[in-house]
Amino acid sequence: MGATPLYFTLALSLPSVDKKWLADFSQSLKALAKQYNISLVGGDTSKGKLSITINATGFVEKNQALLRSGAQAGDPIFVSNTLGDAALAWQQIQKQQTPSSALLKQFNRPEPQVALAQSLLGIANSCIDISDGLEQDLSHILTCSKVGAGINLEALPLSSEVAQHIANTQDWCVALAGGDDYELCFTVPNAYINRIKAIEKDLDIKLTRLVRLLKRKD
Amino acid sequence: MGATPLYFTLALSLPSVDKKWLADFSQSLKALAKQYNISLVGGDTSKGKLSITINATGFVEKNQALLRSGAQAGDPIFVSNTLGDAALAWQQIQKQQTPSSALLKQFNRPEPQVALAQSLLGIANSCIDISDGLEQDLSHILTCSKVGAGINLEALPLSSEVAQHIANTQDWCVALAGGDDYELCFTVPNAYINRIKAIEKDLDIKLTRLVRLLKRKD
Repeated sequence: MGATPLYFTLALSLPSVDKKWLADFSQSLKALAKQYNISLVGGDTSKGKLSITINATGFVEKNQALLRSGAQAGDPIFVSNTLGDAALAWQQIQKQQTPSSALLKQFNRPEPQVALAQSLLGIANSCIDISDGLEQDLSHILTCSKVGAGINLEALPLSSEVAQHIANTQDWCVALAGGDDYELCFTVPNAYINRIKAIEKDLDIKLTRLVRLLKRKD
Repeated sequence: MGATPLYFTLALSLPSVDKKWLADFSQSLKALAKQYNISLVGGDTSKGKLSITINATGFVEKNQALLRSGAQAGDPIFVSNTLGDAALAWQQIQKQQTPSSALLKQFNRPEPQVALAQSLLGIANSCIDISDGLEQDLSHILTCSKVGAGINLEALPLSSEVAQHIANTQDWCVALAGGDDYELCFTVPNAYINRIKAIEKDLDIKLTRLVRLLKRKD
């Protein structure tokens, strides 16, 4: 994490050509590409079952990339914005309900946290984007960094809709295992904690401290 | 075309885990990666309908890449090796027949013509790999270069199996529209024709001259 976006490729497999869908899809993709000033440089189109593979490549100085390894016992863990919005939208869609526009936006058009990841270069010592849910993605950091963690549920940053959903159902899975939020989970050495507040202010983003990392008991 | 391979990514979507298939697939992929001295640097695995997207990235000096544009009227067109072997193998598989090992190899393990493309840097003025069949891929060169071409069927380089199949069935489609051979189709200015013989010898590869490019009649 922490790279500057350079270009992306698209491999698109479709069972048939739906011009309306293709127009909407390519417009959205183009808008995102424009936002990050990158071009579609290649890929493939083929007929087949629906499959979309987008491969974004970026550049980061040697040895500067934020990896899953590097976290140390005692480091605080942070996550950006709120968790579970995309998963709750998907759950509602599956139940034939109509999610709010806020939830739907997070599900259909999650914002890549590119500026945040770049701000964390030289500050965070591990970082991952939460695509599969906090529990699974934080576990990647824990495994690669050989540390442990306990998550304080009360500390999880939740939108009011997700908080209400959990209050009603005790379904913590949307926030812990839902995925598709693409928020960042990262660890910061205590010496750099003050820098986090400055980043929050600069980027107008919410960064929530979850727990400290624990030494792993093997 | 003409780049030096740098790295590749793999996005794999599978309906279920078939350990035997995965072992065979990853061994083959690893062997090819080793042959070209490149690493798998990222990608994704997910559960879903079968979809395999491999994205190989290479490096080529600025303004040196062989593009689809650049061909001039009067330039001879060349193709590498033979055409239609992969398509004939696929046709036989669909008819429950067992293709020869030579055909099957071309279908299952086509050789990327990396060394040939690199040898053509500074010599060819357009180049494409034949993934969709000669007719379609040559058309990309013709469109991008704003030239025309006639294909002399007698000149097409065919393996004895494909030649026999066409003699029996008049099914020229395997050689013209079959695809999946991944041979190269390229054009060379007349001044560099002699270099082609040297490349043939150096790389121990067959390069067949098809026709000259024609001026496009708009």
